Amino acid sequence: MRIGFVIRQLGLLLLLLSATMLPAAAWSAYDYYHYRVQMPGTGAAFIALLLSALIGVATGFPLLITGNTQNKQLGRKEALLLVALAWGVGAALSALPYRLWAAMNPLPPGTEQAFASFVNCYFEAMSGLTTTGASVLTDIESIPRSLLFWQAFTHWIGGLGIVVLFVAVLPILGVGGKRLFRFETPGPKKEGVRPRIRAAAQVLWLLYLGITLAEVFALRLVGMGWFNSITHAFATVATGGFSTQNASIAAFGSWKVDGILIMFMFMAGVNFALYDALLAGRWRDALRNPELRAYIGVMVLATVLITALTMGNPVVLTDGARAEGFWPTLRHGLFTVVSIQTTTGFCTADFDQWSFPAQTILVLLMFIGGCAGSTGGGIKVIRWVILFKVLYAELEAVFRPHVVRTPRVGNAIIDPQMRSAILVYFVLIGMVVIVATGLFIYLETPQKLDSDGWDAATTAFSAVAANLNNIGPGLDRVGAAMNYAWLNPSTKILLTLLMALGRLELYAFLVLALPAFWREE
Amino acid sequence: MRIGFVIRQLGLLLLLLSATMLPAAAWSAYDYYHYRVQMPGTGAAFIALLLSALIGVATGFPLLITGNTQNKQLGRKEALLLVALAWGVGAALSALPYRLWAAMNPLPPGTEQAFASFVNCYFEAMSGLTTTGASVLTDIESIPRSLLFWQAFTHWIGGLGIVVLFVAVLPILGVGGKRLFRFETPGPKKEGVRPRIRAAAQVLWLLYLGITLAEVFALRLVGMGWFNSITHAFATVATGGFSTQNASIAAFGSWKVDGILIMFMFMAGVNFALYDALLAGRWRDALRNPELRAYIGVMVLATVLITALTMGNPVVLTDGARAEGFWPTLRHGLFTVVSIQTTTGFCTADFDQWSFPAQTILVLLMFIGGCAGSTGGGIKVIRWVILFKVLYAELEAVFRPHVVRTPRVGNAIIDPQMRSAILVYFVLIGMVVIVATGLFIYLETPQKLDSDGWDAATTAFSAVAANLNNIGPGLDRVGAAMNYAWLNPSTKILLTLLMALGRLELYAFLVLALPAFWREE
Repeated sequence: MRIGFVIRQLGLLLLLLSATMLPAAAWSAYDYYHYRVQMPGTGAAFIALLLSALIGVATGFPLLITGNTQNKQLGRKEALLLVALAWGVGAALSALPYRLWAAMNPLPPGTEQAFASFVNCYFEAMSGLTTTGASVLTDIESIPRSLLFWQAFTHWIGGLGIVVLFVAVLPILGVGGKRLFRFETPGPKKEGVRPRIRAAAQVLWLLYLGITLAEVFALRLVGMGWFNSITHAFATVATGGFSTQNASIAAFGSWKVDGILIMFMFMAGVNFALYDALLAGRWRDALRNPELRAYIGVMVLATVLITALTMGNPVVLTDGARAEGFWPTLRHGLFTVVSIQTTTGFCTADFDQWSFPAQTILVLLMFIGGCAGSTGGGIKVIRWVILFKVLYAELEAVFRPHVVRTPRVGNAIIDPQMRSAILVYFVLIGMVVIVATGLFIYLETPQKLDSDGWDAATTAFSAVAANLNNIGPGLDRVGAAMNYAWLNPSTKILLTLLMALGRLELYAFLVLALPAFWREE
Repeated sequence: MRIGFVIRQLGLLLLLLSATMLPAAAWSAYDYYHYRVQMPGTGAAFIALLLSALIGVATGFPLLITGNTQNKQLGRKEALLLVALAWGVGAALSALPYRLWAAMNPLPPGTEQAFASFVNCYFEAMSGLTTTGASVLTDIESIPRSLLFWQAFTHWIGGLGIVVLFVAVLPILGVGGKRLFRFETPGPKKEGVRPRIRAAAQVLWLLYLGITLAEVFALRLVGMGWFNSITHAFATVATGGFSTQNASIAAFGSWKVDGILIMFMFMAGVNFALYDALLAGRWRDALRNPELRAYIGVMVLATVLITALTMGNPVVLTDGARAEGFWPTLRHGLFTVVSIQTTTGFCTADFDQWSFPAQTILVLLMFIGGCAGSTGGGIKVIRWVILFKVLYAELEAVFRPHVVRTPRVGNAIIDPQMRSAILVYFVLIGMVVIVATGLFIYLETPQKLDSDGWDAATTAFSAVAANLNNIGPGLDRVGAAMNYAWLNPSTKILLTLLMALGRLELYAFLVLALPAFWREE
């Protein structure tokens, strides 16, 4: 383990993260001069953001210079450790603006300030960086715009980090980057690892920026203000789900906004390497991609089923309004399906009012998630495609042991190594879900279950599903119109861990638990 | 598919099953002459059993003679289909005595006769043959002894069938019989498939009979009557769990009975091929068996944890009595652990009163189950051992891709084929549990959830776990002091299917759903 190298990179990361606080600080300066009276707490937000950036620099810089500069090679172990630390430590720094703002802006006694607890701030920051979108805020609209900008920006940074990591860095390093998961990455091939990563990352970053800008302008065009356009574009492209409105997207009450968000959520759930293929003119390759087809197929099927299952009852929206008839049912069904499957978590309909079968479909979508190499979370569509092919092959082998058929996805062969890796992934996800759901019930029910009789199992399981898969809202007590404020600190820490586990596809954290990881070879 | 051969074997099976009704009929004849007045319904039971046997002969005989006699080879497909049909059709015939008895013995209007519904009878019969032990009877003690004898005997027949199937038939045919699962089977090796199966089956059947007799005499020795000794020995050796008493084993209130049952439940959960090794003097091989060690280890650990977690509160027994102190807590903790892990399902403690962590351990034990080649259900200890080794190897490969380490269990190598098979098994179990739990909630909650506020998820999940793993009692509404009588017929059919799926380790039923299974090669 070349720990010096990891420390150095971590220092660099803290410096970069500090720099990303400056746009939010600039926004608060602007708000302070223009709307000082209407927006209380904006001045404190400015100071909190600048102070956090300074703390980031003050910790990042020493790490950068004490870290080893000799060894420039990024090995597997170093990459895994760095990735885990990046999200763990990154969230701590990103939580500072919230915490410092609350310290400077105490609410009158009797009112509860969510950000007065560091666990809450850490939860919110991790939820941002992992593009989950689960929130501890009950009244989002009471928070200064600049902090909401920062909140949305953590989504955007996290989403960018994930795309670069899973499309450019890990596959080139050979970590978790099995052939099927990456759509051929571009860039020069024979120049060593670092230049290749740099070239691939550059393309991705420009794509990501381009899509974000396109969405900002699209939203602005249908009449949304700049602030909401920018924050919602950040949250969409990253499949995050933080909204600046208490009622989430229902607050805008516009089918045009819904339509634009549906389109961009869909795009954010697609493998970003595929856009690169599109730009290179390889339309056919992109459209023939088996994962893309399955992704669209699942979305269409789920929308049809959900619309059929919710027809007949009025759609209750998250702002309390009701809508009736075929078109509203379809519109909010489609929005919810796309939002949940891409693991964004924006809400228009309060799906907690839906029937059990409709909710079951939503929970299944949570576990399916977006495409590999997208900002979407979940298990990823391609893993499900491979799983079903492997299951079929395995069942067939029970009665036809001599017919050796190698399952394929598109042109790629699912070799035994890939087969084992995919199956292990599902088993691990299952174990994490079971353990986490049990822990959630254990941590939450002793004091609360008997008092008001909420459904502990539904809440626990859906909270675990929504956080592990980086969606945000779950069901029942953590449903579309609810939030995570009421949980115990220990439960919040559990969910924070799940967000990170899910976002980094388990391995980066699980391997750290093996003694063999820390042994020198 | 040589369907003629399957039909012939099925006919033979029905004839055998009819013959097994005769001991129960004889018992009712005895009771009729000695206790006619005290035991109402015994005469009807005699007629019902004889009539059922006649119906079995009347359907079995035509199948036997119309079936193909030319082809004597038992292929994989035929074996799989036959096994699925054996339990499916066998349960239908075994349900007849209950149904016919109820027809002849109508209760006064207003009282409910569980056996007046054929679904209930089928549930009870499948629960017997799969050695599950889940019951639709609210008042077991109102049923004539001869029918309870038949109920216990279905356990014994089912358990024998499973041991012979999984230790002798399937491994020799090469179906699901991977090397690790069988403790080397005895018998001549070069005489072709049928003589080898016959020799192996003979040894197993004698072992099974011997253990049963030993338990009958042991129970008789501590003062239990012949009837209870015999029925409880049947239910123990098969890891079934039907008791003749409403309060299950708590009714005897004897630590000697508990101790004997603990010992024989433990023995029934061990690979039967291991006893064969013991008899052949290969003590060392048997005691070094990694599955046996893990089986004992899990049992000891679970007992320690459960005792610690339930200490401090009095133990509520299934007959309503209470016991306090260290020794009763340990005694009932050990009994429950052994009963649940071996998937027997006998109860002394009403574990529905236990804390959430203690119940969680019980549910985990349900999924662990007994050893391969035992009468126990569940996923089987050896699969868990292999799973953990595979998971470790897979995680290690993430950061050490060039160190190829082949995981082993004892001296046996876990090859890629085995690895894939084990992982697929866990994934399939997970899928079955999820689908079945969802279906259970869907089928049961619309009319009942809101009315009396029972915990739908706990009941559904634990019912699925208890039936898929062939245990019997679950939690909450299907807990230790409850039964399955209150469920909808559709839910009972679902659970019946789960019993069969779990008992035959999924494959025999799942492959029948593949179109490729039915295609001629």
